[in-house]
Amino acid sequence: MQPDIKLAATLFDTLDRTTRRGRGIVRDSYGDGEQTAHDLMRSTAESLGLETAVDAIGNLSMTLPGRDRRAPRIIVGSHLDSSPQSGNFDGAAGVVAGLCALSALKGAGVQPECDIAVMGIRAEESSWFNISYLGSGGAFGLLDPACLAIKRSDNGKSLEATLLERGFDPSPIRERRALLEPARIRAYLELHIEQGPTLVAERLPAAVVTGIRGCKRFRNARCLGEYGHSGAVNRPHRRDAVAATVALLHHLEAVWLEHERQGADLTITSGELYTDPAFHAPSKIAGETRFVIDIRSVSDALMDEVADEARRAAVRIGAQRRVTFDLGASSDSPSAVMDDGLRAGLRAQLARPFEMASGAGHDAAVFAKMGIPTGMIFVRNEHGSHNPDEAMSLDDFAVAARALLGLLRDFPPS
Amino acid sequence: MQPDIKLAATLFDTLDRTTRRGRGIVRDSYGDGEQTAHDLMRSTAESLGLETAVDAIGNLSMTLPGRDRRAPRIIVGSHLDSSPQSGNFDGAAGVVAGLCALSALKGAGVQPECDIAVMGIRAEESSWFNISYLGSGGAFGLLDPACLAIKRSDNGKSLEATLLERGFDPSPIRERRALLEPARIRAYLELHIEQGPTLVAERLPAAVVTGIRGCKRFRNARCLGEYGHSGAVNRPHRRDAVAATVALLHHLEAVWLEHERQGADLTITSGELYTDPAFHAPSKIAGETRFVIDIRSVSDALMDEVADEARRAAVRIGAQRRVTFDLGASSDSPSAVMDDGLRAGLRAQLARPFEMASGAGHDAAVFAKMGIPTGMIFVRNEHGSHNPDEAMSLDDFAVAARALLGLLRDFPPS
Repeated sequence: MQPDIKLAATLFDTLDRTTRRGRGIVRDSYGDGEQTAHDLMRSTAESLGLETAVDAIGNLSMTLPGRDRRAPRIIVGSHLDSSPQSGNFDGAAGVVAGLCALSALKGAGVQPECDIAVMGIRAEESSWFNISYLGSGGAFGLLDPACLAIKRSDNGKSLEATLLERGFDPSPIRERRALLEPARIRAYLELHIEQGPTLVAERLPAAVVTGIRGCKRFRNARCLGEYGHSGAVNRPHRRDAVAATVALLHHLEAVWLEHERQGADLTITSGELYTDPAFHAPSKIAGETRFVIDIRSVSDALMDEVADEARRAAVRIGAQRRVTFDLGASSDSPSAVMDDGLRAGLRAQLARPFEMASGAGHDAAVFAKMGIPTGMIFVRNEHGSHNPDEAMSLDDFAVAARALLGLLRDFPPS
Repeated sequence: MQPDIKLAATLFDTLDRTTRRGRGIVRDSYGDGEQTAHDLMRSTAESLGLETAVDAIGNLSMTLPGRDRRAPRIIVGSHLDSSPQSGNFDGAAGVVAGLCALSALKGAGVQPECDIAVMGIRAEESSWFNISYLGSGGAFGLLDPACLAIKRSDNGKSLEATLLERGFDPSPIRERRALLEPARIRAYLELHIEQGPTLVAERLPAAVVTGIRGCKRFRNARCLGEYGHSGAVNRPHRRDAVAATVALLHHLEAVWLEHERQGADLTITSGELYTDPAFHAPSKIAGETRFVIDIRSVSDALMDEVADEARRAAVRIGAQRRVTFDLGASSDSPSAVMDDGLRAGLRAQLARPFEMASGAGHDAAVFAKMGIPTGMIFVRNEHGSHNPDEAMSLDDFAVAARALLGLLRDFPPS
């Protein structure tokens, strides 16, 4: 059985034609662009004979009924919004894949054991309302009601006004009321383009996701030393903030390499680092640096361990070099682990099984956080995402969609 | 025989009283502050019975005649200007020490073998005309005549106009004409406060200077990598400019430590280092850094060697990490080596002989560059220089001035 790739091609073409604004795609959260995509998916589902429903905050369900309609269902989901001037595939590919699979099952006359619903999730991107996972978080009653006052970044309209204007109901968000019951969901599956370069480099069309990395970040780390003349102050008398920061970051890279050798999933990044332009000079020893330490892993425990090691190293190196590190508070977003059984099931569907962690966040993280067995599959994609150049081939999409269909057909995986 | 410390105390007090402006000292190059100091030294010299003379560009000579007036003379010099809001001792201490020594020799009825001239040098500080060594460089015809057009940083008057206004003659500078003949100078000696913390840390009142460090500097070094998502791009696919810069600077510190272990004189400093605020972000891998590498040593050969190693390491680390380093052109100011015989002579005058390199530049570097045997002695000083808090005790000054006097009395050192 093959997924309906002809349908996929038509859907991607139509999405591109109807939501491209200039060079890039604009499917604004709760805006006309996103609604265009929802309308397309809904009409397609109806023409395939699927049941459709829209929840209070606009999430779309397109369901192939199972033999036991009371049994917990499988959701195949992804978001239909995009960041501004984005590409055509980030988000939408997952919904399209779901429809291709249901079209194939239905075309083959397969009635699954339980309902399988393709979910077109609202507003995953943070670009419009400065908050991620509005649709999936809202469906589980997880949102802070204060978010209703957030103004859309481009037109200044509040989320509440935007929901009302679109005919939706903000009250579940205001009351933290869940629209989905985790116990009624057997599994959540999501296909998404990879947003990094791994699959291109590995020359593989698809990968099974092991987990979605969390992030523990020292956003406002500082090192305080003492400014001095670069020629007149010898090494033993220096309190060199740059040298100390270099020593700390070098140590953290060694920590990273050691964990990597042991097979752990980890990234450690300092993407901002700077001396103070008001005081630094070519002939001065630097008395201060500011920098970021961004730690990511699918393991919360490992992120904690690395953060602790960063704090200990800061104290040790600070004492050795007579400077003071102040790493500041860390901001934490927890990781989400994918279900072992679903991982194995997806691997079994791939000719060349390959697993990797997701560095970026996805709706799947919200479902996993609710305790729902969750699985994800990545499709190779060039040039990253959130830009008009993102590029996924239909052949690669077909490989991943086939794996998704195979898993649904053979569900539960043995 | 003891130097005339009572005279020193009076001179320092008078200098402080007449050239302090608010919290700090202001002896502006070719301005009223510097002139006040020159007038004080000249009148003091005349009252001591020394011969005085002022050259075309304002350098003051105060001479104790020797037995052979045609023999090459010894010059004891330093500058009488200061940077803005400076301390009382940077520069002036060397002229005061010379006068204290000549006062003692004259008081004891000693007639030296050759003339000994104390030289009050003009305009050593770069703060006023953005160029160092105007007085000593001008005396040897070393200045670029274009410097006459440089405008003083505070009042905008050109050097030429300033010289004329003060009654001096810019033509030797315009014609690159030397006012001093190196062959007619037997030795140049300079006492100066230390501008770093070494003698405070070593608990020593004075040090013999081994040489004046030159500087080889990569002022505009850059590392070009590629921006990327800190979570979505794994280590093998990164082109992380911060990580590569950290690796390079860490390597250069190891190079420094190795040379230090071998007893070489060296500093390596990166006092400016920054990612691009227009592009960097906490969740990004940095695609670019800009930084300075400042290399200093009393050995030009060692500076060249370290600069070469920096270039080689930049290529090697760049290749390993798939980034491109562009260290840019280096700016070079050569080092000046002090005369071995004068070093030994000064060491012999100290109860606790200690030697160190000078990190900052001094007029002595100009004399040494002209091939004149040159010696320097540092006096302990707290809080660095070029600020109102510089602090030299008269006791420490006396130790160094006594060594200077001893060397002059016993000249040439055996």
